[in-house]
Amino acid sequence: MENFTTAMPLTSDLPNKKQTVCIFGTGDFGRSLGHKMMQCGYSIVYGSRNPQNTKLIPQGATVLSHEEAAETSDIIIIAIQRLYYDFLERLKETLTGKVLVDVSNNLKINQYPESNAEYLAKLLPESKVVKAFNTVSAWALQSGALDASRQVFVCGNDSKSKEKVMDIVRSLGLTPLDKGSLLVAKEIEDYPLQLFPMWKFPIYLSLGLTALFFFYCLIRDVVYGYVVRKKDVSFFIAITIPNRVCPIVALILLALVYLPGIFAAILQLSRGTKYRRFPDWLDKWMLCRKQLGLVALVFAFLHVLYTLVIPIRYYVRWKYNSYVLDQALKNRTDPFNTVNGWISDSYVSLGILGFFLFLLLGITSLPSVSNNVNWREFRFVQSYLGYLTLVLCTAHTLLYGGRRFLSSKSYPWGLPPAYIFSLIIPCIVLVIKFFLVFPCIDRPLTAIRQGWERKPKDLRESHNNLSGSSV
Amino acid sequence: MENFTTAMPLTSDLPNKKQTVCIFGTGDFGRSLGHKMMQCGYSIVYGSRNPQNTKLIPQGATVLSHEEAAETSDIIIIAIQRLYYDFLERLKETLTGKVLVDVSNNLKINQYPESNAEYLAKLLPESKVVKAFNTVSAWALQSGALDASRQVFVCGNDSKSKEKVMDIVRSLGLTPLDKGSLLVAKEIEDYPLQLFPMWKFPIYLSLGLTALFFFYCLIRDVVYGYVVRKKDVSFFIAITIPNRVCPIVALILLALVYLPGIFAAILQLSRGTKYRRFPDWLDKWMLCRKQLGLVALVFAFLHVLYTLVIPIRYYVRWKYNSYVLDQALKNRTDPFNTVNGWISDSYVSLGILGFFLFLLLGITSLPSVSNNVNWREFRFVQSYLGYLTLVLCTAHTLLYGGRRFLSSKSYPWGLPPAYIFSLIIPCIVLVIKFFLVFPCIDRPLTAIRQGWERKPKDLRESHNNLSGSSV
Amino acid sequence: MENFTTAMPLTSDLPNKKQTVCIFGTGDFGRSLGHKMMQCGYSIVYGSRNPQNTKLIPQGATVLSHEEAAETSDIIIIAIQRLYYDFLERLKETLTGKVLVDVSNNLKINQYPESNAEYLAKLLPESKVVKAFNTVSAWALQSGALDASRQVFVCGNDSKSKEKVMDIVRSLGLTPLDKGSLLVAKEIEDYPLQLFPMWKFPIYLSLGLTALFFFYCLIRDVVYGYVVRKKDVSFFIAITIPNRVCPIVALILLALVYLPGIFAAILQLSRGTKYRRFPDWLDKWMLCRKQLGLVALVFAFLHVLYTLVIPIRYYVRWKYNSYVLDQALKNRTDPFNTVNGWISDSYVSLGILGFFLFLLLGITSLPSVSNNVNWREFRFVQSYLGYLTLVLCTAHTLLYGGRRFLSSKSYPWGLPPAYIFSLIIPCIVLVIKFFLVFPCIDRPLTAIRQGWERKPKDLRESHNNLSGSSV
Repeated sequence: MENFTTAMPLTSDLPNKKQTVCIFGTGDFGRSLGHKMMQCGYSIVYGSRNPQNTKLIPQGATVLSHEEAAETSDIIIIAIQRLYYDFLERLKETLTGKVLVDVSNNLKINQYPESNAEYLAKLLPESKVVKAFNTVSAWALQSGALDASRQVFVCGNDSKSKEKVMDIVRSLGLTPLDKGSLLVAKEIEDYPLQLFPMWKFPIYLSLGLTALFFFYCLIRDVVYGYVVRKKDVSFFIAITIPNRVCPIVALILLALVYLPGIFAAILQLSRGTKYRRFPDWLDKWMLCRKQLGLVALVFAFLHVLYTLVIPIRYYVRWKYNSYVLDQALKNRTDPFNTVNGWISDSYVSLGILGFFLFLLLGITSLPSVSNNVNWREFRFVQSYLGYLTLVLCTAHTLLYGGRRFLSSKSYPWGLPPAYIFSLIIPCIVLVIKFFLVFPCIDRPLTAIRQGWERKPKDLRESHNNLSGSSV
Repeated sequence: MENFTTAMPLTSDLPNKKQTVCIFGTGDFGRSLGHKMMQCGYSIVYGSRNPQNTKLIPQGATVLSHEEAAETSDIIIIAIQRLYYDFLERLKETLTGKVLVDVSNNLKINQYPESNAEYLAKLLPESKVVKAFNTVSAWALQSGALDASRQVFVCGNDSKSKEKVMDIVRSLGLTPLDKGSLLVAKEIEDYPLQLFPMWKFPIYLSLGLTALFFFYCLIRDVVYGYVVRKKDVSFFIAITIPNRVCPIVALILLALVYLPGIFAAILQLSRGTKYRRFPDWLDKWMLCRKQLGLVALVFAFLHVLYTLVIPIRYYVRWKYNSYVLDQALKNRTDPFNTVNGWISDSYVSLGILGFFLFLLLGITSLPSVSNNVNWREFRFVQSYLGYLTLVLCTAHTLLYGGRRFLSSKSYPWGLPPAYIFSLIIPCIVLVIKFFLVFPCIDRPLTAIRQGWERKPKDLRESHNNLSGSSV
Repeated sequence: MENFTTAMPLTSDLPNKKQTVCIFGTGDFGRSLGHKMMQCGYSIVYGSRNPQNTKLIPQGATVLSHEEAAETSDIIIIAIQRLYYDFLERLKETLTGKVLVDVSNNLKINQYPESNAEYLAKLLPESKVVKAFNTVSAWALQSGALDASRQVFVCGNDSKSKEKVMDIVRSLGLTPLDKGSLLVAKEIEDYPLQLFPMWKFPIYLSLGLTALFFFYCLIRDVVYGYVVRKKDVSFFIAITIPNRVCPIVALILLALVYLPGIFAAILQLSRGTKYRRFPDWLDKWMLCRKQLGLVALVFAFLHVLYTLVIPIRYYVRWKYNSYVLDQALKNRTDPFNTVNGWISDSYVSLGILGFFLFLLLGITSLPSVSNNVNWREFRFVQSYLGYLTLVLCTAHTLLYGGRRFLSSKSYPWGLPPAYIFSLIIPCIVLVIKFFLVFPCIDRPLTAIRQGWERKPKDLRESHNNLSGSSV
């Protein structure tokens, strides 16, 4: 959906009331930002070590020495690298009381012990340092294609200076987001360097599982047939094997979403308190459950597509035709088997319902949807509907197995069908969860989660305290 | 998608400039909030009736008596239950001029005549009460898993106090949302207790319709066959019957989205004004149209999945095979029927287009999408595309019927096919809408909706008034 | 998802602390706004030329002359048309220092040279003009159905006045969005008049392509058969032809998303700088790439649905049956062709993977998702995954072609199959992109994009400037 501010660069000729802003540094970002600000009605003065070199400066901007430029404005955007910040100390007096906007980024996370903005504030304690604009790219400013990160994170210790910078952000058609004091600068500087940090573990895990099961199915279904029965079914690699691997990985990942909750419950029950920290691995696992679930949904979605194209495949049509022709030539008709009808239909139906609930879980984890539900609703969806999804998908796999067993052949090279491995973790999770919802176990667990401790020395106080606002 | 603030608890050691905040109450929520605030660089002092009992208090926090604790900070978080608020009157003098943050929730909606925050403000008129944090759960604060409700609703009568509290909210990595004065506190306190209030009616209605039509189809398709023809097709329960019930419920619900608009138009036309309130049931119906539409979309989606798996089903494959074998044995080929080809293909095609538009309507009702469209665009999508969807889906059902009629058998026990019932409301809606778009009816209706009244006594004034800003 | 403020009109009886607000104009919008504000606890005084005519005024509101009404409040909402603003000059003295809220809209974009709010501010320079509420419809205020545009854009030169108006906005359950100074008023006034401005080009383009290829396929597949072979396959219009046109249009549009980037790279390389503006058509093209991509996704989605229903179609089932019967009568079985198996399966599998990645691109372009990713992540998804999607979809089409060629018949009337035309642009894009990623070309391009210029006169300065904050 278009946001109307994208149209701004095309229509903006806002003449009156030009506020002057000074930019130190004539590098790419400084030039891009200055150009954009001039489009939006600001008057720009660049501060440069070499004010004669105005070749790349946007038309209409002035270039002066740093000292002269700093005197023209109360707001100075520091678009130079941290390495060169120390030369600013020479301008200490000129910069006293002025708003310094630190727009810098580093090349890697944790490059320096302290954030660039805090370093600047330490160098120039009499100036008011505000961190802003570092999440916006020079290219985006120039092209106006601000699809990602219309948000500009702003932080600083002086709220009036922050407000001034946020006004500039707004006038450029961007959305300022006040993140608080300069303490947050480090976080804001690390932000543009991240590449899906929470997704790494789920994605690597799923790729590992995929490779493992792909190899297993390859041996069992293709290599065995080729070696033992001299039949070339190598084309199974394109659809048949992916459609075996995808549901396996999806089910395992889905179960892994609920497994840490099981561990946490057992830990809390055995410790008798919730006030002891979980081991680190469990903490991290619990924080990436959403990503695990979404990766599982991707595999489930691929499984659905791979399944739905089955009747279109040349191989499947050929197999069906051969079967019918075989019967026609033998002049007989296989009778309808009601049990098979039941198994086939209910296994498909369970899969459909499971996939639908899974999709619902995925949709409610969209930021704009989850922001509009309260905790009670979020837990209802993610916990009750989540377990229902796991139950349906596990039953779907079990029934699929049931159907397989009826038409089972001997295990090639003693290898069981791959789907059996996918059932282990879901079944463990469901069995333990089944015991956890027994009142005799659920009651102490709920109490612990509301702050109760086993054998507490003094409970009088906590009686008139708020025990669990909305857990 | 991960939000970078989730990483905070792992990386935050923000040492300098510790602001002291006081928390009254050492219950679960007070402890969790204090723990989180200490992680984010605050220094916490608990006020307790029993300052010796520091067993459960987060490490590093101080516990004092209420009086002593209150004197250490300008901001006091009241994490005790409303029941015990009255004891705060004893501290009236100490609390004068201080910011009291009410974080409490009730156990059920409308438990008390006035909100807890307003009650607190009445008890301590000299303090500045701010409502905040009640939508966040203790568990979420501890675990850092803030997927839902990163938003913290804040309200209060004193804007400076509100700003101070919002700064704390921001520094915890949460998003404050200023909801206005303390009058809104009741609403904010009711929020965490809700469980999809707008969804109840659509969900119950759809479940009722599902049960009704499921039972009808069961009798007509399964029981009749079993009783009269001694044929066991009980496995129809798994896919065949759901795939009959889902489209019926989806179409009825979709028509019910547009029916209240029809009623409203007729009411406005007959009354000749829009300035009389609609009956209550119509008001409520109109407010849950979006939810009705989304539930309808769910049923349509299930219908699509159930339809696409048809060729995979064992029963269907067996039926096709029998049919081919039957022809092979009789040595004849049924000729191709062009009319059947047309009906079959266009009924499927209409269904696909209808489902696609339906999905588009669903996507545009996602909060982040609908926030980015203006009223003109929203009405274009929801009204024009919405009616087009209804037309396509009704035509899809009619053609499906047409195809059925060609191969109709006698009605079992006189029961007509279930899909016929699903056509009643959509056809009524479409016929009335058809008349409503006639210029002779549309013109007065549009005038009424822009504020015109039939037989108004004096229209001179309204001529130079703004008549309908963007309707 | 319901937002809890929708429930407000049903539950709000907020009695105390009535602030008085004055509304000039008793037209539809003035009345609706006044009614809503009274529901939310405000006391409303209307200013009218004809204070006796109180027929349509909400119950409980007072109607006075403009002069008298203006004296009752510091905030005056100007709900009259711009045409009549000049009469306000007579009230200049009374309105001095007061907050005037301009809620007006125009009938078309750029109706007046300056915005209504700026015009009002020029007429009454001593008053504080704030633009607000123009994006909300009168109907939405009355009905409480605020699905779209819960956001109220606010702008004005006086920040205290703006804050007062934003407080009113919040108390009505709406979300104020401070857009900056009164310079933005024009933009805010244009906003409600837009109807998907960024979507027009992609939609018209796709409709044109659809019509073109539909006509081409109609001639080639239906008319040719009818004229030459006297066979009526007119029912191909319902599914067969749409399922040929959809993937063609989808692939062309997807390639058109990446073509402008290729042009831009070539331009930048040949110019040796990024500081010269692109031609206007290229600028506009680059700004609507997201919309082009989403329209392409729609066509891909329809292609998927049309493909999945293939085995359900009466025509297809009849064709398969005839084929089997033909073999049965001739008493022979076609042997399985492994090459065909490979081609069929891999072409389908590539399509599935391509569609999945395409869907992923679509989901990440949802505003709430793209707001939560930084530039590095956004570029990773949109650039790497985007090109991977294009590669997969092009390979899918090539293999489909390969399969066709194996069973190719002579070209009817010399017309090649339509899919061949869809391959031209994607192949050009991929071939050029292939050369652009060669290090010898990629290196100078990257340098140019980070601000480097070919033959720059002086590079000393830029060494210690920030070169490319996050590109």
